[in-house]
Amino acid sequence: MSLQLPQSVTVVEQGPRDGFQNEKEVIPTEEKVRIIDALSDTGLKAMQVTSFVHPKWVPQLGDAEEVLKRMKRAEGIKYSALVLNEKGLQRAIESEIGTIDVGVSASETHSRKNVNMTVQEGLDRILGVIEAGKEAGLSVRAGVMCSFGCVFEGNVPMENVLRIASSFLSAGAEGIGLADTTGMGNPADVYELFSRLIDIADGVPVSAHFHNTRGSGLANVLAAMQAGCNVFDGAIGGLGGCPFAPGATGNVATADLVNMFHEMGIETGIDLEKLVECARMVESILGKELPGQVLRAGPVKH
Amino acid sequence: MSLQLPQSVTVVEQGPRDGFQNEKEVIPTEEKVRIIDALSDTGLKAMQVTSFVHPKWVPQLGDAEEVLKRMKRAEGIKYSALVLNEKGLQRAIESEIGTIDVGVSASETHSRKNVNMTVQEGLDRILGVIEAGKEAGLSVRAGVMCSFGCVFEGNVPMENVLRIASSFLSAGAEGIGLADTTGMGNPADVYELFSRLIDIADGVPVSAHFHNTRGSGLANVLAAMQAGCNVFDGAIGGLGGCPFAPGATGNVATADLVNMFHEMGIETGIDLEKLVECARMVESILGKELPGQVLRAGPVKH
Repeated sequence: MSLQLPQSVTVVEQGPRDGFQNEKEVIPTEEKVRIIDALSDTGLKAMQVTSFVHPKWVPQLGDAEEVLKRMKRAEGIKYSALVLNEKGLQRAIESEIGTIDVGVSASETHSRKNVNMTVQEGLDRILGVIEAGKEAGLSVRAGVMCSFGCVFEGNVPMENVLRIASSFLSAGAEGIGLADTTGMGNPADVYELFSRLIDIADGVPVSAHFHNTRGSGLANVLAAMQAGCNVFDGAIGGLGGCPFAPGATGNVATADLVNMFHEMGIETGIDLEKLVECARMVESILGKELPGQVLRAGPVKH
Repeated sequence: MSLQLPQSVTVVEQGPRDGFQNEKEVIPTEEKVRIIDALSDTGLKAMQVTSFVHPKWVPQLGDAEEVLKRMKRAEGIKYSALVLNEKGLQRAIESEIGTIDVGVSASETHSRKNVNMTVQEGLDRILGVIEAGKEAGLSVRAGVMCSFGCVFEGNVPMENVLRIASSFLSAGAEGIGLADTTGMGNPADVYELFSRLIDIADGVPVSAHFHNTRGSGLANVLAAMQAGCNVFDGAIGGLGGCPFAPGATGNVATADLVNMFHEMGIETGIDLEKLVECARMVESILGKELPGQVLRAGPVKH
């Protein structure tokens, strides 16, 4: 055997949503816009910039419309927002964002804490959002949260994850993501579940979203890549977590991800030095050290 | 293709040497012994406990004889010490430690800073140590430092690494290790170099030593395992670095390594909960947070 090394991969920046939602202090809109604009200038091709959830539940992203109005929309970048219900979809349509990300948790307990619904109720609602979003001309990507375990329930059966993903595919989702919301995944399960998902996805792009809670974020990236996945989420500086999943810590840091890809000879189109500068800017705005490693050590020098 | 998942792997604890040597404050001998004894009780089968280098260069390990005299030597554990010259070998023989680890850097600049010799001079000296060590009845493992790059020189040609490894094999080393001393390795190079080494090693066990400087430590472990390696170094809590390589940060944390293996269904014989307790004890003794992730998040719960 040999390692599967694609020529290029797509890196999706999630910090402005998955990261900002998890900060205790609400980041001022102008700082968010400054960070997003700087990220737009790194060569990234996709970025999730906010979420249309109710500000009562996630006050950190209560300024979604304002962020979308003020940020620059660079050519060649697919900006998206997370949407979890019909109301959020309406807000997305009014904000003229071309792509939405929707999601369902594969864990009953996490689903109840996250959206106060059973998995099936959440799925039914999201299938309606996918349909309505597509009718409104939006591009829709759909993700499965807690695909690799749940802090409340432990193991999450792969069959449950694949059943949700199949429903997304039938509804016409243009991308399917598996998220390890609480950093419980391991490379063996990641490889198996991504292999099985790619089998049923029939060419629809599949993406991987890992948290580095137990240090194996990039190992899981490598495993997903071996299974054929070539779209990977990261968050600037390793920001992130889930407000409704205790113990969930940061996403894989985008610069760590990009450094590893570039060192492996895999193209991302991203200027790593600029990305590291962004991470340092976020540290300075938040006034604290972030967990990303490459922002400390710097990219590898040849 | 599918992932290569061995039934079991050997984890070699390196914290008492690679970790302790890199702490600014010299850790008192009794605390070292307390940590080593606790580690001996976790189910680990191999541990590098100190180094016989001149105390002028590495004062942190100046108590090598005392540590070896006071620590308990549990059955079934292969204790070793690092030796870099004839004088160190004599001290190892007198201390009645059954196994020594020797090493040569593949980088000219790092070699000069580490042992004040060219690579070839360092290799000649170590080949003499291997021969004399074997004559004295010791088990000898030999490692190549800076196998995946050097902070001073950038790339290190794979041919240079393999040439050193071949010399070690000809001299009868009973194990060959490749060390990514400064965390510059990536999974593609790791896979290629370990594949090539295993080809020439002809059954002699091969081991991998990764630092997590840029977050890809466990990804490199996964890549080495795909190439057929099944002996992995770690350091308790993610301690470590190299006093003669600026920017070198900690080893992969042993608990992160073991958590990943166990989650993949790969046996280590180690009690992960006990290992995490050890890491927390080291944090308490050193009075600071260590970078290991599983010691913060805890092992995955099923």
